[in-house]
Amino acid sequence: MKQISMTAEKIAELVKGTISGDPQRVITGISGIKDAAKEHLSFVGNKKYEEQLTTTAAGIILVCKDLANAPASDRTLIVCDNVDLAFAKLSALFAEEPPAFVPGIHPSAVIADDAVIGENVCIGANAVVESGAVIADNAVISALCYVGHEAKIGNGTILYPNVTVMYRCEVGAKCIIHPGVVIGADGFGFIPGPQGLVKVPQTGIVVIGNDVEIGANTTIDRARFGKTVIKDNVKIDDQVMIAHNVAIGESSILVAQSGIAGSAELGRGVILAGKAGINGHITIGDGCQIAGTSSVVKSLPPGQIAIGTPAETQRVFLGRLALPKKFQKLEAKIKELEAKIKELAN
Amino acid sequence: MKQISMTAEKIAELVKGTISGDPQRVITGISGIKDAAKEHLSFVGNKKYEEQLTTTAAGIILVCKDLANAPASDRTLIVCDNVDLAFAKLSALFAEEPPAFVPGIHPSAVIADDAVIGENVCIGANAVVESGAVIADNAVISALCYVGHEAKIGNGTILYPNVTVMYRCEVGAKCIIHPGVVIGADGFGFIPGPQGLVKVPQTGIVVIGNDVEIGANTTIDRARFGKTVIKDNVKIDDQVMIAHNVAIGESSILVAQSGIAGSAELGRGVILAGKAGINGHITIGDGCQIAGTSSVVKSLPPGQIAIGTPAETQRVFLGRLALPKKFQKLEAKIKELEAKIKELAN
Amino acid sequence: MKQISMTAEKIAELVKGTISGDPQRVITGISGIKDAAKEHLSFVGNKKYEEQLTTTAAGIILVCKDLANAPASDRTLIVCDNVDLAFAKLSALFAEEPPAFVPGIHPSAVIADDAVIGENVCIGANAVVESGAVIADNAVISALCYVGHEAKIGNGTILYPNVTVMYRCEVGAKCIIHPGVVIGADGFGFIPGPQGLVKVPQTGIVVIGNDVEIGANTTIDRARFGKTVIKDNVKIDDQVMIAHNVAIGESSILVAQSGIAGSAELGRGVILAGKAGINGHITIGDGCQIAGTSSVVKSLPPGQIAIGTPAETQRVFLGRLALPKKFQKLEAKIKELEAKIKELAN
Repeated sequence: MKQISMTAEKIAELVKGTISGDPQRVITGISGIKDAAKEHLSFVGNKKYEEQLTTTAAGIILVCKDLANAPASDRTLIVCDNVDLAFAKLSALFAEEPPAFVPGIHPSAVIADDAVIGENVCIGANAVVESGAVIADNAVISALCYVGHEAKIGNGTILYPNVTVMYRCEVGAKCIIHPGVVIGADGFGFIPGPQGLVKVPQTGIVVIGNDVEIGANTTIDRARFGKTVIKDNVKIDDQVMIAHNVAIGESSILVAQSGIAGSAELGRGVILAGKAGINGHITIGDGCQIAGTSSVVKSLPPGQIAIGTPAETQRVFLGRLALPKKFQKLEAKIKELEAKIKELAN
Repeated sequence: MKQISMTAEKIAELVKGTISGDPQRVITGISGIKDAAKEHLSFVGNKKYEEQLTTTAAGIILVCKDLANAPASDRTLIVCDNVDLAFAKLSALFAEEPPAFVPGIHPSAVIADDAVIGENVCIGANAVVESGAVIADNAVISALCYVGHEAKIGNGTILYPNVTVMYRCEVGAKCIIHPGVVIGADGFGFIPGPQGLVKVPQTGIVVIGNDVEIGANTTIDRARFGKTVIKDNVKIDDQVMIAHNVAIGESSILVAQSGIAGSAELGRGVILAGKAGINGHITIGDGCQIAGTSSVVKSLPPGQIAIGTPAETQRVFLGRLALPKKFQKLEAKIKELEAKIKELAN
Repeated sequence: MKQISMTAEKIAELVKGTISGDPQRVITGISGIKDAAKEHLSFVGNKKYEEQLTTTAAGIILVCKDLANAPASDRTLIVCDNVDLAFAKLSALFAEEPPAFVPGIHPSAVIADDAVIGENVCIGANAVVESGAVIADNAVISALCYVGHEAKIGNGTILYPNVTVMYRCEVGAKCIIHPGVVIGADGFGFIPGPQGLVKVPQTGIVVIGNDVEIGANTTIDRARFGKTVIKDNVKIDDQVMIAHNVAIGESSILVAQSGIAGSAELGRGVILAGKAGINGHITIGDGCQIAGTSSVVKSLPPGQIAIGTPAETQRVFLGRLALPKKFQKLEAKIKELEAKIKELAN
């Protein structure tokens, strides 16, 4: 962490917040609320953690509007509209910068003669760029990456080490691709034939939009024909599996270990929580949210929240969860009726 | 896609189909049914999609026998026994070829002096082949692959980039191994000892048969002792996990993100759908089919369909799913009885 | 396997066991109980497999105390306190050694001038070590590994091929990191802002203790700020996902395909079975055991066994599983009552 001295006044200015307490209070670093010392800035973004305002040692605390008047002893509070966003902005200021990407091609990299390399490109040690590949300006191809024949990497996009982009696949601008990602391996298609399973040629590609982030060891398969499509601003976590011919709409979020089977279509702003699964050949409407570990087996209209395996509405799911308790009540009820019947019979 | 002109007559000949409509109709490309233009060939393989025959713009459509007499306006239909197989065959004809593997060893590859390299082998840039490894004729070791000491790669097998095959493991002939696959990492075995967890040495290997395909970032661990075995024609999707000492029978299909715990044995033709799990030390009989996200905890005789966690028969699973509805009926029934008892009591 | 002749007497001495049968019996190899021949040593560690003592061909069998007096025909039994531990010890003796790591730096490796490389270090072909990285004595950086800027690799730690350790992350001593592992990719954090999703800078690192083992293709993300922490002796299987700011206590065991969401804290000796999931921001107490495919959504006190999605106690889970049967009984009961009421009414 960089050592920077900053007053509450200056911080409030940066995040457009309102000060409650001493505006001249100074911090020199940032920290999570539990680990913070008095020279640290921290944050509490939710009223349910209110008591942390007095148990933390942090000198200055960003808080949400609900906590504007919370008792905070001698700490200085800064009230913000969006605490998460404000803290993220400040934490970037205090963060030690990641190692810089120095433009240039490492002599150990193997670049085909007819690959097209833009301006200010950085290609790391032992990277391999095949014939016909096009690397746009300002892109970073880190050490040990593989960029296949005729693949395209967009302006300012970063491939971290050990990424594989297979032939003819296209990655847009300003994307961040983490280590171990595989883009454009064959889709999984076999047809039972008279002599056993016959491979269906996977002749399509993967097309990834701009500002897409893809987490470590995620795999996105090339299309059977046509394209597997990841639209702009999609954010994908680690170890996600996206099968052939899938289409993911803008700004969707796919959390770790989720998986999407072949030819499924996700709308804009869809959220898959961790380990969620989507069946093949179905459509998930804009803004749907799928709970962790849930499996969606039928198409969903926009805006649905789905949970469970097979996924259903939250109401139905909670009803199912409550079944054992409801069952016990029913048993008690029946015992009661039984007793009454006995009484009547006598 | 290659531009090839082809008549319905020619297509019917290639796929042994029967024409309904104009046999001289010409297409110049192929496409999925929704995206097709009139110069495209497409397909409808299931009667439930019958209406697509009139909504699509495709000029020629491969259809299954059920749709032989379906109304199709001016489209030319070609009726086939196996639409998927027929379309796969044709799509291969129209597909642009993948980049060719040119035999030869890239000067940047690092090959041990005593590795045995066959005829017509292609070894890519920055690949590493260790001492005693044997690469059979016509094999492809792509860029950045690692082939460990005394490992064996069979005739015509392709390792795509960034594959790791650890020491002494054996891959058969005509296999396709996608990027990021790890074959032969240590199995996971620890024993609680007086000073904590003790590693169980994993002294065995992995043996993979012929015509096996393995999807991106899948991992297959070496045996504790003896062999982890993948038999001929097994097809494995992306991000599948196969633990030590597992045995997978011929022509089994393991869909993405499925996992098989140590020493489990799968018979021939077993299908694990996406995210399915198999417990350790159990046996799954020939031809069993395990539903997506289901976990099998007990051995299964041949031919079973299993679903749920823990997996059970489809009938039992559906019964369980229906429980909330059945419960509501029971509640209503009880109210009825209660009313009757009241009536009697009065 | 090495060919070594060994008497029952010698074996008993090595594992501190007691012989029942011929102490001069000789074996020349080891094997699993089903595949064993008469010149093999094998083991039966559980009374429920008692009948294998007579069906196996193994000449000498390690057994647990419960089987001390089991009928074993002419086999020689050796009774041990901890059969697994004893067999692991012996199997290491008979195992062919893995290829030796020869200290030295392969000429094709790319090592930054200011990286610090200890004594007896082995760096493999085409590996890349960036500026400021510190590789301690006796460490192994295998072929095609990437060690980022200012990363630290501890004494005697082995990175197998194709491992990625990102900048500033720290791996302790005597760790074993299997192929394809990614340590220190960015955590997954985005905040909805007025112009769409804003990336939260991930400015922290990953710190891994001593004697940690990490399975193939597992990913451990760097912290948002501060550290993602894996304590000493933690054992992690293949394809496990550990999100930013997670903390894992000593000697915990994470089985394949399990996943832990951001900022979760696991105590000492926690066990996650295969495909288990832990929600973000919760605490799992020392010694908790989470069943396979279960998802824990609330914090757990020490020593809990949790199962199901959402996870609950074993008793509650089994009650839920039994619901269909209990339901049938209730239906029968109600029919009975109905009949009685009818009787009374008449």
